[in-house]
Amino acid sequence: MPQVISGIAASHGIAIAKAYVHEEPDFTISSSEASNPSAEIERFENALSVSKEELSAIKDKTEQNLGADKAEIFAAHLLVLSDPELIDSVKDKITNEKRNAEFALNEVADQFITIFENMDNEYMKERASDIRDVSRRVIGHLLGIEAGSLATISEETIVIAEDLTPSDTAQLNPLFIKGFATDIGGRTSHSAIMSRSLEIPAVVGTKEATKSIQTGDIVIVDGIDGEVVINPSEDVLASFEQKKADFIKQKEEWAKLVNDQTTTSDGEHVELAANIGTPKDLEGVIANGAEGIGLYRTEFLYMGRDNLPSEEEQFEAYKEVVERMEGKPVVIRTLDIGGDKELPYLDLPKEMNPFLGFRAIRLCLEQQDLFRVQLRALLRASAFGNLKIMFPMIAVLEELRQAKALLNEEKDKLIAEGIDVSDSIEVGIMVEIPSTAVAAPQFAKEVDFFSIGTNDLIQYTFAADRMNEQVSYLYQPYHPAILRLVEMVIKAAHKEGKWVGMCGEMAGDEVAIPLLLGLGLDEFSMSATSILPARSQLLKLSKKELAEFAQKALELDTADEVAKLVRENYISE
Amino acid sequence: MPQVISGIAASHGIAIAKAYVHEEPDFTISSSEASNPSAEIERFENALSVSKEELSAIKDKTEQNLGADKAEIFAAHLLVLSDPELIDSVKDKITNEKRNAEFALNEVADQFITIFENMDNEYMKERASDIRDVSRRVIGHLLGIEAGSLATISEETIVIAEDLTPSDTAQLNPLFIKGFATDIGGRTSHSAIMSRSLEIPAVVGTKEATKSIQTGDIVIVDGIDGEVVINPSEDVLASFEQKKADFIKQKEEWAKLVNDQTTTSDGEHVELAANIGTPKDLEGVIANGAEGIGLYRTEFLYMGRDNLPSEEEQFEAYKEVVERMEGKPVVIRTLDIGGDKELPYLDLPKEMNPFLGFRAIRLCLEQQDLFRVQLRALLRASAFGNLKIMFPMIAVLEELRQAKALLNEEKDKLIAEGIDVSDSIEVGIMVEIPSTAVAAPQFAKEVDFFSIGTNDLIQYTFAADRMNEQVSYLYQPYHPAILRLVEMVIKAAHKEGKWVGMCGEMAGDEVAIPLLLGLGLDEFSMSATSILPARSQLLKLSKKELAEFAQKALELDTADEVAKLVRENYISE
Repeated sequence: MPQVISGIAASHGIAIAKAYVHEEPDFTISSSEASNPSAEIERFENALSVSKEELSAIKDKTEQNLGADKAEIFAAHLLVLSDPELIDSVKDKITNEKRNAEFALNEVADQFITIFENMDNEYMKERASDIRDVSRRVIGHLLGIEAGSLATISEETIVIAEDLTPSDTAQLNPLFIKGFATDIGGRTSHSAIMSRSLEIPAVVGTKEATKSIQTGDIVIVDGIDGEVVINPSEDVLASFEQKKADFIKQKEEWAKLVNDQTTTSDGEHVELAANIGTPKDLEGVIANGAEGIGLYRTEFLYMGRDNLPSEEEQFEAYKEVVERMEGKPVVIRTLDIGGDKELPYLDLPKEMNPFLGFRAIRLCLEQQDLFRVQLRALLRASAFGNLKIMFPMIAVLEELRQAKALLNEEKDKLIAEGIDVSDSIEVGIMVEIPSTAVAAPQFAKEVDFFSIGTNDLIQYTFAADRMNEQVSYLYQPYHPAILRLVEMVIKAAHKEGKWVGMCGEMAGDEVAIPLLLGLGLDEFSMSATSILPARSQLLKLSKKELAEFAQKALELDTADEVAKLVRENYISE
Repeated sequence: MPQVISGIAASHGIAIAKAYVHEEPDFTISSSEASNPSAEIERFENALSVSKEELSAIKDKTEQNLGADKAEIFAAHLLVLSDPELIDSVKDKITNEKRNAEFALNEVADQFITIFENMDNEYMKERASDIRDVSRRVIGHLLGIEAGSLATISEETIVIAEDLTPSDTAQLNPLFIKGFATDIGGRTSHSAIMSRSLEIPAVVGTKEATKSIQTGDIVIVDGIDGEVVINPSEDVLASFEQKKADFIKQKEEWAKLVNDQTTTSDGEHVELAANIGTPKDLEGVIANGAEGIGLYRTEFLYMGRDNLPSEEEQFEAYKEVVERMEGKPVVIRTLDIGGDKELPYLDLPKEMNPFLGFRAIRLCLEQQDLFRVQLRALLRASAFGNLKIMFPMIAVLEELRQAKALLNEEKDKLIAEGIDVSDSIEVGIMVEIPSTAVAAPQFAKEVDFFSIGTNDLIQYTFAADRMNEQVSYLYQPYHPAILRLVEMVIKAAHKEGKWVGMCGEMAGDEVAIPLLLGLGLDEFSMSATSILPARSQLLKLSKKELAEFAQKALELDTADEVAKLVRENYISE
């Protein structure tokens, strides 16, 4: 019997190939007395500069292949290498304790890593792994270790590793790397996100892949059901070949829908839009037949740099997107920084509960200079296409009114300056805070649209940090309480003749889609690769029938009961 | 014209007396080479042990005068003095750097303080001030500085200080200290809480009291409106004497209601209950005429010690309360630890967002051994009075079902052991998470009662940490969204014939009370000192009239509009 190990399905698809177990080179570091500290400091500085050059090259390559948002992490790595606190600590250690450079760096990096790891939550652990990745690169140079051999793989291979660092994944050539499986990581870990971008099947968090698999084993990575099969029998191999063929065929079927409208079986149109982070993401959006952009996150413009982006830079980025979308709607969300997304150059205070803190619109209404620059850039870009403006984290009407007042002030100024501004810009808000869902009847009178941000709405509604594994069981998109809040928002909006979108992960979820259609959602915005499967699903559903069905779901007791009811009735296995 | 400075009203009432400006003694610490480190270590250890004795004495005295929960902080201080990390760091510094003890302790304490202060939120800053308070005590002994002279004040005095440490407030003799004013602090800072316990008027956070006031000045502390008047004219003095007399008269009027039922003007009875932390709080509860205990927080049993309380200890504490309440209802909440309340000996992981983390019932369902001990103690105590059990932080039905299953298992075991258990214990839940309010119709079928915990419900509903000053504007109890959630909970409960209480600060708030009565709230649970004013207010209100009025409030746009409407109609100024 072939051995099967289970993990988390990180990226859909089936891959079958020979395994290559990526082992970490020997990084044993010995401490030695440095008789000449200044020579050690020079070695350290050389290793730093070589590492910086490498990272810049990797960053450029990633930007070309995968888009600016994916390259973001290397900009962060470059910042680590310029961090005076880290560098000076290493130099001090070399000088004061007369230690060799690799030992000094390793000790200092470990201190930083320990601080982040002790935070004991997924997000901070990722920061620790950034520092580990960067410091290993520099130490590698100091020890004369060859950079990992992943870049040189030139036959069809499945990579097995404890974890894949950003530097590792940047080297993977999707022509030869057919899939991967790792011991650690979750659906939102770096390696999982990269596997989806590269569109290669992956299973993460298997706990034992590197122990159970040897280089040369034949391995099946099933990124649909989250399994890894080792040295399968002929029969098993054949069944997975079939599963793979079915998956490819299904993808081909989906591809035929790229230019179709999304019309339900009873003739109702809904809009399928895409979420993007940068203009570079537009290629995938267009290739997957999105009917618009439901969420353009503007944070990436502000991240991985050490100052604020100018009005001109922002204007160019917004203009490019609305122009390339050729009149299709583009919803641009104003800056949603703070919480888990920090901007070092803004020097925001550390908070006890950043998810409940000073972020997004709260920050923008306080730091109005920063906000006005973005509003001006948006207003100017509005003349070049169908641009809609959306404010994040609105909790009370006063915030919306203040944000709209600032927008109108900047609009009047631009008009007075003789600059073109669209006179029909729709202005909406994210509904991601429970108060806003409950008070939707009041908000609906003062917005043009709502977009429900389920990722945050769910974590606030259950009071459970979605990054915290110990309470992850409370991330329950199908829970009747969430469905009721969604219903309240949609009813309130429709009563005032406004439309409602959704831009959280829930909008592209096959179990949620029938419910959301039944509740009357007008626009579904998701990652580009989910659009065609969602369209395929929606074409077969009847909105009228689902309206009744959704009411039944609302009366159930638990999320599990809801999911079961949907699966039994609307998901073909 | 007399000078008036403004601050935060921390404790109601008017005090008029001579000022004593409490100045910090000179704590200048010089660094000197310690030729004999072991002698320095001995000095340090002596100062530690003298400080421990002092703190134990203060703790005992506070426990007698103010109750165990107020003495809690000194138990925490004693733990700081036994913290091996702190003590060893100081000794290392003395030995390795050959420094004198006071310098070494000061440096180490500063490091700890910096870590806590950089958290930049109220709760963590309080932890920093604990360490500051303790280390100053020890350093004072090392420097031979006399402990503060607050303890020796023996005439009517108003104390003016930058801040009052727990050690300072423990020394205040309420016979002579008529009030105080501080430069820093907020409504929840230690000094503010102590002023309410001591029932002396106080104004905190004036920013400038120590600069504007000199020892010997005549000062009025107006703890009703948060003002401090310095050297008032005869006229001003007379008007404040009148205000003071009015306040005292009102208190006397209230006192007459101590044995009355709480019946509205249209003959509807509501229950006014008290929130307590330990059995020591019962004296105030009985003195203020509470009709029951609406919230007995059991955390204090677990805090300020280094191991878990035994079943027997807990049983005694619960039994004492139900017996002394003589058949009146006592709602005991199971352990709500985690979040901002840590138990060092449980060694819980540090979390990125503790308010959205692994706390209360989430922790108890995972650490079942700990939970079962408490359930057994509660069940045993139920035989001695009217005990009700309440689970905190319930977000989904599965949690309630699991908690009830554990309770029933322990009940069956006790019965099998022949131990008396009440056969009519009501089991309810806190409604403090938005999902639970929205799904109240489902929960109402499986509980005996709800108690709405507004402090948490408000912070989750607006996604705003109530400890974070930068988003404190979102702590909006009167917001229509909160009122709607409260209405949903009450309607759902009444439909199933269950009762609804409220145990957050909102229940004792004079603006909220008319609205809550109108929405149909059955039980109002608050701090004991709020009960008589609340009863006085409720006696004059008509529930029927307010039911209509509350519907109007629900339709308003903002919290400010709601507050204005209530004030105009139901609050006499």
